[in-house]
Amino acid sequence: MYKQYDVIVVGAGHAGCEAAHAAATMGSSVLLITMNMHTIAQMSCNPAMGGVAKGQIVREIDALGGMSGIISDKSMIQFRMLNRSKGPAMWSPRCQSDRMKFAEEWRYALEQNLNVDFWQEMVSELLVENNKVIGVKTQLGIEIKAKAVVLTNGTFLNGLIHIGEKNFGGGRTAEGKATGITEQLVRLGFEAGRMKTGTPPRVDGRSLDYSKMEEQKGDESPNKFSYLDTKPLSEQRSCWITYTNQAVHDELKTGFDKSPMFSGRIKGLGPRYCPSVEDKINRFADKDRHQIFVEPEGWNTVEVYVNGFSTSLPEDVQYNALRKIPGFENVKMFRPGYAIEYDYFPPTQLKSTLETKLVENLFFAGQINGTTGYEEAACQGLMAGINAHQKSENKADFTLNRSEAYIGVLIDDLINKGTEEPYRMFTSRAEYRTLLRQDNADIRLTQKGFEIGLASEERVKNVNTKIEQSKFLTEELKIKKVKPDEVNNILESLGTSTLREGTSLLNLLKRPNIGIEELKTLTPEVEELIRNYSTEILEQVEINVKYESYIEKEQLMVEKVSRLENLLIPESFDYSKLTTISIEGRQKLAKIKPATIGQASRISGVSASDVSVLMVYMGR
Amino acid sequence: MYKQYDVIVVGAGHAGCEAAHAAATMGSSVLLITMNMHTIAQMSCNPAMGGVAKGQIVREIDALGGMSGIISDKSMIQFRMLNRSKGPAMWSPRCQSDRMKFAEEWRYALEQNLNVDFWQEMVSELLVENNKVIGVKTQLGIEIKAKAVVLTNGTFLNGLIHIGEKNFGGGRTAEGKATGITEQLVRLGFEAGRMKTGTPPRVDGRSLDYSKMEEQKGDESPNKFSYLDTKPLSEQRSCWITYTNQAVHDELKTGFDKSPMFSGRIKGLGPRYCPSVEDKINRFADKDRHQIFVEPEGWNTVEVYVNGFSTSLPEDVQYNALRKIPGFENVKMFRPGYAIEYDYFPPTQLKSTLETKLVENLFFAGQINGTTGYEEAACQGLMAGINAHQKSENKADFTLNRSEAYIGVLIDDLINKGTEEPYRMFTSRAEYRTLLRQDNADIRLTQKGFEIGLASEERVKNVNTKIEQSKFLTEELKIKKVKPDEVNNILESLGTSTLREGTSLLNLLKRPNIGIEELKTLTPEVEELIRNYSTEILEQVEINVKYESYIEKEQLMVEKVSRLENLLIPESFDYSKLTTISIEGRQKLAKIKPATIGQASRISGVSASDVSVLMVYMGR
Repeated sequence: MYKQYDVIVVGAGHAGCEAAHAAATMGSSVLLITMNMHTIAQMSCNPAMGGVAKGQIVREIDALGGMSGIISDKSMIQFRMLNRSKGPAMWSPRCQSDRMKFAEEWRYALEQNLNVDFWQEMVSELLVENNKVIGVKTQLGIEIKAKAVVLTNGTFLNGLIHIGEKNFGGGRTAEGKATGITEQLVRLGFEAGRMKTGTPPRVDGRSLDYSKMEEQKGDESPNKFSYLDTKPLSEQRSCWITYTNQAVHDELKTGFDKSPMFSGRIKGLGPRYCPSVEDKINRFADKDRHQIFVEPEGWNTVEVYVNGFSTSLPEDVQYNALRKIPGFENVKMFRPGYAIEYDYFPPTQLKSTLETKLVENLFFAGQINGTTGYEEAACQGLMAGINAHQKSENKADFTLNRSEAYIGVLIDDLINKGTEEPYRMFTSRAEYRTLLRQDNADIRLTQKGFEIGLASEERVKNVNTKIEQSKFLTEELKIKKVKPDEVNNILESLGTSTLREGTSLLNLLKRPNIGIEELKTLTPEVEELIRNYSTEILEQVEINVKYESYIEKEQLMVEKVSRLENLLIPESFDYSKLTTISIEGRQKLAKIKPATIGQASRISGVSASDVSVLMVYMGR
Repeated sequence: MYKQYDVIVVGAGHAGCEAAHAAATMGSSVLLITMNMHTIAQMSCNPAMGGVAKGQIVREIDALGGMSGIISDKSMIQFRMLNRSKGPAMWSPRCQSDRMKFAEEWRYALEQNLNVDFWQEMVSELLVENNKVIGVKTQLGIEIKAKAVVLTNGTFLNGLIHIGEKNFGGGRTAEGKATGITEQLVRLGFEAGRMKTGTPPRVDGRSLDYSKMEEQKGDESPNKFSYLDTKPLSEQRSCWITYTNQAVHDELKTGFDKSPMFSGRIKGLGPRYCPSVEDKINRFADKDRHQIFVEPEGWNTVEVYVNGFSTSLPEDVQYNALRKIPGFENVKMFRPGYAIEYDYFPPTQLKSTLETKLVENLFFAGQINGTTGYEEAACQGLMAGINAHQKSENKADFTLNRSEAYIGVLIDDLINKGTEEPYRMFTSRAEYRTLLRQDNADIRLTQKGFEIGLASEERVKNVNTKIEQSKFLTEELKIKKVKPDEVNNILESLGTSTLREGTSLLNLLKRPNIGIEELKTLTPEVEELIRNYSTEILEQVEINVKYESYIEKEQLMVEKVSRLENLLIPESFDYSKLTTISIEGRQKLAKIKPATIGQASRISGVSASDVSVLMVYMGR
């Protein structure tokens, strides 16, 4: 514990675990410091991974060689591919997790990594010399040196928990808060802020009447997250859907005068797209009901998560309101919902590597950057861990751009636009979402992950096989022609126009009513041709063929924009010279110090004309 | 959560879990309140159950219908029957446990019990009316009513953790302390005290060199704790033995000036028989080494428990000293050892049911009574849970006397003698230890457990079969005679004297050199007779035959003493009338209010002549 480490990771949630794993796998000696070794990789909020845009992120993490996908696969109790009925850009994997197993699998994975050491204690101070971090100091006064430090403090920095009119310090219910770091960073010149998040009550599944709810089963042929050979589920647990109603809302309203949100006791802004139930009935007064997802917490527990019912109202109000929900008439609560306020650092203070601009070798990942969500945290941890390793080895920065990954979108948004409220990923945040699909994250990213020493050779082989087989099948579909008399009967029955002359299978596949499954029915020969390919390859080819025009359009845009991305701005550039652009533009540019013209164009407060001036100036 | 419960149990450690399970199984509606649902049944100290005298207690808990035996069986990673080479009164089952699995199995078992509800929060106050407890009040201000309340607060009441010169509040490292209850109980007239315990550092198993240690494997044919049909282990993990040395001691001594024990910062008394390593080298200065047991924490973790190295010295001293232990040269620590001080209530304030004398319907179990050890806590929880149920149903007290169970010895010791330091069970505390064996706890106790509605019918059937078969086999051994010419050759080879005339197998079995295994070799007929009995029956019969005289002697003593136990003293008896006995005797008697002359005779400070006077007085 007293040796010099390459990388110290503070915090062992989703961000910290990915950071530690990534840096260690790449060869850094890593010390993972957590306040409690029993709570490594706790799912503090809902027992689920993935979802719209978030599932894509998990796939990207996996493609790069991170662990979130593997751990999710090993601990899931239900899997669903969301948005199957929409275009493939929207398909989003999501699973329900066994909370305890998720944590155990993460801890086990980290313990198996010989480069990861552990230390249980609170870090109370960073060791900083000449604006460089050189280690950390713990509550016991232990100083541990490192070449780089990654902070992933989650909701622990000065965490303050609210339930009704009561509040108490803590990073999660029943756990302590972390102190010292915020105060030090502010002294060092960092801007800090307060954010808020919340969680619903947990209830006793034995007290619920599921006959009054709608069952939501997992997919019939469940997929999984990892591109490696983890096993899909053979058995799944269901979730249940029920709704609030006017009586529930009326009960909740009786607690509004004691609400820490409405009374102003909570200063931090909460996640807009994951509002508390009192927020929902307040902001959407015309809606007479809100959906509640009843999610089991694992294989072997009766504890249930009441998704959609996040609240910080007094616990008796929570209880009385819950009992008005169909199926919850006899509900027993295990723990009340609560809100938590915590410190964050506006992420415009970061470089694209997640290193802070003010203190060299110091990296931030997760909620400390103003984000919300396990997946958002995990991918930042991964990128911070990678770059902490790279930095400590004097190797090149590792960044992803907006056309390569949701991870690129997320970090680019954070560092250029900042965030006033907890930042959550959506598909709408990505301008190239037809490119950034869950099915091709490996094709987009695995080679990159391999080159930096994170993704294994096995992953590269898998993805190369996938690319080759897809090409080969596409070629075969192009070559293989069918004649009108062979297939017209079937085409007619499929509700698509008949052929007048022979055409390739590829052309047929472009038709809206014809997918790979339909191709198979055309002739025994075609069936035989297709039979030998895995579902993954068939899906890949089908998507590429059907969405060819969209994909090409987005790729053209990427090329166009990338010209701006390639126009570098020197870090030392003096924006005060640009007297012809707006004062706000100059200030924002000076603050963010964009690395490229592309980045400059995405800074909020920097106008298109500001960018033109900048380009002219740079052109000289 | 707002309903009226029969029994509220505060705390979910070994005592709380047994209390909740027992009361609920007997039919009480139970609310188990814990500060953290993730830490139900945490093994705060070593990952092991049982041991000398403690293993007997686990067997007794199991025989009565408690869960500790079953949970231990389901989560063990190694089993050993200690003291096999000594007489059967000393045989003591012990297992190493998977810490996480132990906790999970307990939580799962409790969740399966429909009468157990859960609530996660801190209890800050008892609701007391007219010297009767009627419920509890939580930190959030929630009032929950109950007919009886069991307090099992462990080390959490005003817990204060010490490491070197640092100290901070907490019931375990990384967990909060509990406040409010001690203060209230003192206001209600309770005497409170401070005790201290400690725990060693946890280290990284990957950093140890096991080739420098002695391997300690589990038993070749491992037994188990429960009398039910749990499975014995088919695979086991080893422990390892190493030793401290002069260099280790010298390193430790460098921290003595910062030791919270030696400096007087720690006021509470620690467990004499589980001293810290600094205590050992201080008190036994002539010993040049102390044994260290290196215990794995589970199947799937590299974390290791350093048994024998409990310490509250500064963590750098711990680290430097550890590194001087053979096999620990490159040790990496996960968490430092620490000492913890906590409040307890001298147990002379309790009745034999573990109900407090001052406040009706309030029960105490575990460390709050000044005991140490998981098993000691668990059996008190069991007894408190049973009696809380009985009381809330207006049913008879359930107590065990000193000749029936170690549990009886423990409670009798506590309530009559009190304890100045953490009380741990030893076989030497039991005057009838030939009766209180691990092999016959079911015979002693299961019928009793069944009669109160705790032990299942299956258990009674099992024990009745065991009794019948043992009797039947004993009878057969008595009837079956062997002739000199049949067996003399073999007897000679067994090193025992030959026969001159025929004798029964029973008589042969009484010989020191002949056990059941040797009987089998006498003739094919004898082998056939014995073959059909299980190991358990054979062991039972062998013990009863071989130790007959010891058993009879103790049984005679029990009968003699039980006459005193049957001489009841009215609760309202006025001891101030006994002017002829010593003042100390009078005071102690008035304080303890013994229920019987037998109990009075065991109160420390009450002399034999005091008892005679009392008997004369009662005889009137």
